[in-house]
Amino acid sequence: MQAEIITIGDEILIGQIVDTNSAWIARHLNPIGIRVKQITSVSDDRDHILKALAEAAGRADIIIITGGLGPTKDDITKKTLAEYFGVGFKEDEETLAHVARIFARSNRPLLQSNKLQALVPDNCEVIPNKNGTAPGMWFNHNGKIYISMPGVPFEMMYMVEGEVIPRLKASFKLPVIIHKTLLTVGEGESFLAERIADIEEELPPYIKLAYLPKLGQVRLRLSAYGDNASVLQADVDLFAAKIKQRVGAALAADEDIPLEKAILNTMAVRGRTLSTAESCTGGFIASLITQHAGSSAVFLGGAVSYSNQLKQSILDVSAETLKQYGAVSEQTVTEMAAGALSKFNADYAIAVTGIAGPGGGTAEKPVGTVWIAVASAAKTTIKKFTFGGQRSQVIERVAINSLIMLNTLLNDAID
Amino acid sequence: MQAEIITIGDEILIGQIVDTNSAWIARHLNPIGIRVKQITSVSDDRDHILKALAEAAGRADIIIITGGLGPTKDDITKKTLAEYFGVGFKEDEETLAHVARIFARSNRPLLQSNKLQALVPDNCEVIPNKNGTAPGMWFNHNGKIYISMPGVPFEMMYMVEGEVIPRLKASFKLPVIIHKTLLTVGEGESFLAERIADIEEELPPYIKLAYLPKLGQVRLRLSAYGDNASVLQADVDLFAAKIKQRVGAALAADEDIPLEKAILNTMAVRGRTLSTAESCTGGFIASLITQHAGSSAVFLGGAVSYSNQLKQSILDVSAETLKQYGAVSEQTVTEMAAGALSKFNADYAIAVTGIAGPGGGTAEKPVGTVWIAVASAAKTTIKKFTFGGQRSQVIERVAINSLIMLNTLLNDAID
Repeated sequence: MQAEIITIGDEILIGQIVDTNSAWIARHLNPIGIRVKQITSVSDDRDHILKALAEAAGRADIIIITGGLGPTKDDITKKTLAEYFGVGFKEDEETLAHVARIFARSNRPLLQSNKLQALVPDNCEVIPNKNGTAPGMWFNHNGKIYISMPGVPFEMMYMVEGEVIPRLKASFKLPVIIHKTLLTVGEGESFLAERIADIEEELPPYIKLAYLPKLGQVRLRLSAYGDNASVLQADVDLFAAKIKQRVGAALAADEDIPLEKAILNTMAVRGRTLSTAESCTGGFIASLITQHAGSSAVFLGGAVSYSNQLKQSILDVSAETLKQYGAVSEQTVTEMAAGALSKFNADYAIAVTGIAGPGGGTAEKPVGTVWIAVASAAKTTIKKFTFGGQRSQVIERVAINSLIMLNTLLNDAID
Repeated sequence: MQAEIITIGDEILIGQIVDTNSAWIARHLNPIGIRVKQITSVSDDRDHILKALAEAAGRADIIIITGGLGPTKDDITKKTLAEYFGVGFKEDEETLAHVARIFARSNRPLLQSNKLQALVPDNCEVIPNKNGTAPGMWFNHNGKIYISMPGVPFEMMYMVEGEVIPRLKASFKLPVIIHKTLLTVGEGESFLAERIADIEEELPPYIKLAYLPKLGQVRLRLSAYGDNASVLQADVDLFAAKIKQRVGAALAADEDIPLEKAILNTMAVRGRTLSTAESCTGGFIASLITQHAGSSAVFLGGAVSYSNQLKQSILDVSAETLKQYGAVSEQTVTEMAAGALSKFNADYAIAVTGIAGPGGGTAEKPVGTVWIAVASAAKTTIKKFTFGGQRSQVIERVAINSLIMLNTLLNDAID
């Protein structure tokens, strides 16, 4: 079963907002066996919307439309859908009552433009919007399903989870799609591909393997398509096991999670704690870690020691070390890691110091020079890197490499 | 001049990654007078790519393609482009030398699949990729420009800024577009619109005003379209000055910069320093600040005091306070701010403590409960918030609101 997503709104095409809705919708359709064939973003333009709808209907069974349902003049999705279907409008009483309640609750006057939100095309079934005033709409037209929802993410998300997914399951006999993702670190895409070439050759035609590389990590994703979930799952598990065995120590997680989440999971199981001492990354590593629910079970906290004074006062780096070797040095990063372990009372620590740029470089220590240390009571690993790229890239690369080093240290640990 | 963007890759259609490239590209094409007409995401599928290329060429003058250029089997963009243009392949010597250098530098063996990256369609001009092995490609075919780039954001970004934009400027006579953006904080979009309604009425037809709201901030963007850059600039400056005067204290910056950068600029001019004490935001505020070049002139550093122990040891929050009022309390955030000022020797401090969720909430302090303090030696401002939304939204809202509070404190300061 194939779907297409059409997002409507000038704000996407001028780059003012990133379309996060489509990825979210796709992630929620895949598990029920609906594949997204194409995602199309078009402007608030009648002709363009009509063309996009017709093209999508030529390729997919389900057309999901977000955006353009607001009360202002530039929102023309509803009008254009009615034109596309060749129908008039009806007033939906429940929607009108719902809109009136929302305005009454916040003591705002109910304007004519708000009342118009209850007008929907004659051929639609309303999908209630618990989080806003614009109703969602479900159409069944010439054997295709069209679903129109607001572009506001939390309004759309509630509709998809609460209404759209159950209705789609009831409307179609859906095929089964099983995904399995393995996260590997520290080996290149082409190197991995050669190592598992024979396993890839063996894959049956209904299982696909994709390589998804990103900054020192490669995700290997197996996707199986068919009818029998347990058979597909067994097949995917079999090939995943073969790949896991082959890639060995490069495996960081056997599920689709970011590296820092894999590390948090490992440390939580072992009951270990982590702290950070960041100079050039300025809190980025800590914020990567703490974006994950439950991180407080492992992560105690850390220092963003941008100034030398803070390196001394929070992390106990000695003034002598800073003076003799400088803030960006093996000696300083070693003392930062030791300080993060002892002063924050953590089992493991990450420490980084470097020159993220664009200023601050010297002939001896150019922009991109970075020292990273990862430490436990038993062992400290220190590496020097010279990263290219802009400031934000240097920061991201430092963070990923510190996580890869910590992952290795955890793998090597006997505990 | 109209462009279309085609992003190629199954990972977008299954929702594994969000397509951030398209918005970034659109934002960089608009200032040189190129509008994006449609964004289309398709899978790594020959027929689908061929169809998308043909459809895009029917609508736009410039077709920008990202993704599917990796060295592995599922990357078929290059092969499909050659088929679309009806051409064979040539080896690009400079690309081969570049790829060989990259592998030599990192002591990795140069595999056959890597060598193949230097093969490009006969009719292409290579766009060098300084940050990776897959070359970009520029095609001129039947009066349309096709540009193919890797999907890896920093590889693509470097190509667009360094190569694609200059070449597009040289290839087309583009209209002049002058943008001027004012950043306002703390006032709603409709309220601002009423305040400047008469100025908006006065705008000539070739100057448009857009309201770009985002989390407590509204950007007002004036865009002038025409032929004469100096006339347009003078007109835009005139109206920008009128709006600035009218919005008064709500103005945070008269250029298109993020709020934290505006704050850094103000503090740098005044020679003031800043520190942070973050609990629930986990380093996110510090990382927002330190993403900006030159932030070290103002930002001394901070603490990510996730655990209560770190709140005590780094920030001098008293054990008594934590015990009596809890970590998420007015008393604790006050002591955190005071600690950040005194222990880090800063002129200004931001302190936040709260429950980002999804766990950790109670009836009395539900998920989303947050205390924020901003402080100088002269004054401390404290506010309690109850934010809705997911963990990442709570973290972002806390950060923005702490910056808005700091901006106000700086505006009120006499120094």
